[in-house]
Amino acid sequence: MGELDLIRWIRRHSTCTGGVIRGIGDDTAVVDVTLDKSIVITTDTLLDGTHFELAKCKPAHVGRKAAACSISDVAAMGCTPLYALVSLNIPDGIDEGCCRAIYRGIFAITEEYNIQVIGGDIVSGDCALSINVTVIGTVLDGQAVCRSGAKPDDVIMVTGKLGGSAYGKHLMFKPRVAEGIRLNRDFGVNSMVDISDGLLIDLHHILEESNMGAVIDVQQIPIADDAHKLAEDTKTSAVSHALSDGEDYELLFTASEAAAAEILRVGVSDVHVSRIGHVRAKDGLFLRGIDGKENSVSPDGFEHSITKKING
Amino acid sequence: MGELDLIRWIRRHSTCTGGVIRGIGDDTAVVDVTLDKSIVITTDTLLDGTHFELAKCKPAHVGRKAAACSISDVAAMGCTPLYALVSLNIPDGIDEGCCRAIYRGIFAITEEYNIQVIGGDIVSGDCALSINVTVIGTVLDGQAVCRSGAKPDDVIMVTGKLGGSAYGKHLMFKPRVAEGIRLNRDFGVNSMVDISDGLLIDLHHILEESNMGAVIDVQQIPIADDAHKLAEDTKTSAVSHALSDGEDYELLFTASEAAAAEILRVGVSDVHVSRIGHVRAKDGLFLRGIDGKENSVSPDGFEHSITKKING
Repeated sequence: MGELDLIRWIRRHSTCTGGVIRGIGDDTAVVDVTLDKSIVITTDTLLDGTHFELAKCKPAHVGRKAAACSISDVAAMGCTPLYALVSLNIPDGIDEGCCRAIYRGIFAITEEYNIQVIGGDIVSGDCALSINVTVIGTVLDGQAVCRSGAKPDDVIMVTGKLGGSAYGKHLMFKPRVAEGIRLNRDFGVNSMVDISDGLLIDLHHILEESNMGAVIDVQQIPIADDAHKLAEDTKTSAVSHALSDGEDYELLFTASEAAAAEILRVGVSDVHVSRIGHVRAKDGLFLRGIDGKENSVSPDGFEHSITKKING
Repeated sequence: MGELDLIRWIRRHSTCTGGVIRGIGDDTAVVDVTLDKSIVITTDTLLDGTHFELAKCKPAHVGRKAAACSISDVAAMGCTPLYALVSLNIPDGIDEGCCRAIYRGIFAITEEYNIQVIGGDIVSGDCALSINVTVIGTVLDGQAVCRSGAKPDDVIMVTGKLGGSAYGKHLMFKPRVAEGIRLNRDFGVNSMVDISDGLLIDLHHILEESNMGAVIDVQQIPIADDAHKLAEDTKTSAVSHALSDGEDYELLFTASEAAAAEILRVGVSDVHVSRIGHVRAKDGLFLRGIDGKENSVSPDGFEHSITKKING
């Protein structure tokens, strides 16, 4: 079954009006709850056997990650996560210690980010373990940073270093909440997404929603040490891992030339920020190599791995 | 594993402060999103094999029910449901037509109640089909009706007729949204819950949260036709089905004597409302029979079947 087709179908059937500022198709939904105040809300499910293998990880790490993914989505809107709901599908026969460990991982990260767990649901039966975390946040000064805001000549920037997350970061990443808020409030970035599916795919999300194109300077991409290690094992290049590996959960954003210069001058936190390319009014995503030549990259080649998430 | 123990453990570990007006332990959570405005939020998972059998139902009915359960929780707070997020766990090999039918059922009821589907998540793998629906609502004039508000001498009342929901109502029930809002806004009821686990269990929820006791007049309980039909098949009494069957999704509430009289005089909608007993300051739940004698009912006997839901 084609989840992407299904999501497109759902999106066509979901006619959002009135208080819905952003419905399906961004990191989070944005809705009005009063005449002048909005909230953001996002939900994410991790399924044993698909997104993790319980037999091979610590339950607390899986719980932590489930919450962190939704927190990262709120960070990518430049908003403040406040509340979480946690729903568990528990297979018959699992021991309660494992479930508590999952919750301990969730509580550890929610406490770290000052997020309160306010509810959820627990069901059990003949099922796989799955953890669904919904996070609700408030919108800073009425302004969430959407994917659709990229403008021609915007500088494309990214926090942290990319690639090789499979070597550990995919579980223990730090959602860039403070950075997202700072980029929104202090620097007025135009569009933002968190890198869950990989730099190229997530940049494609921004370009698609903004009706823009872009060029990436390959030699500017910040490459994680683990991308180099992974490249040795996979016999590919570290930069290809930085371009395509998912689950870095860094922030990818676009800002005006002036804002980008200010971001680089002042910094957003102790996390390094890199400029890696720029947005173009004309369609298409290109990689510029060390020789200055541009090569087109088609999103079709990697669409099979695009997230199945309705938001985020 | 004991889900109830797990929920108690979670509740102890979930320290809610600040903007959390109601955390774990009611039909929905209630949270502040601004200085003066609150929202309610609730989430509910239906799991194939535990809450329904896909092989024996129409997928659209299952989708409808998944959404209706969460809508009913918002109704039980006397609040207005506005937005929904839908997350699906899809087993490998299921056909897309089935998934669309589930969504059609969800869209049918959300449209009927003017609720917008604003997001969700879809994951697939080696899992059972499950449907999680989160519903967000606004709080009417800052006042959600909690379980904890029952007062001594309150009249206990219920909408509709009870029992025998297994014969169809459990799938096709109508969440009492208009009634919940009316009871909150126009009659100021003191406590409310929706009957998902059964009259006795859900009344116990109110009494436990309010630190009250109660007596129920057995002959006043409104008995559904299907409770009589089911009683013929189960060789028990219709009234025992009305007392114990879950999934009627009627509203059970308590109101002052004056408010109760007004509710009975004016009505809340075309749905009948019955007075079935009253709240007492002293502990314990009693059934008063046709002979006027009171018999104590212990919640322990039915706790095994208490919902595993953290809210609701």
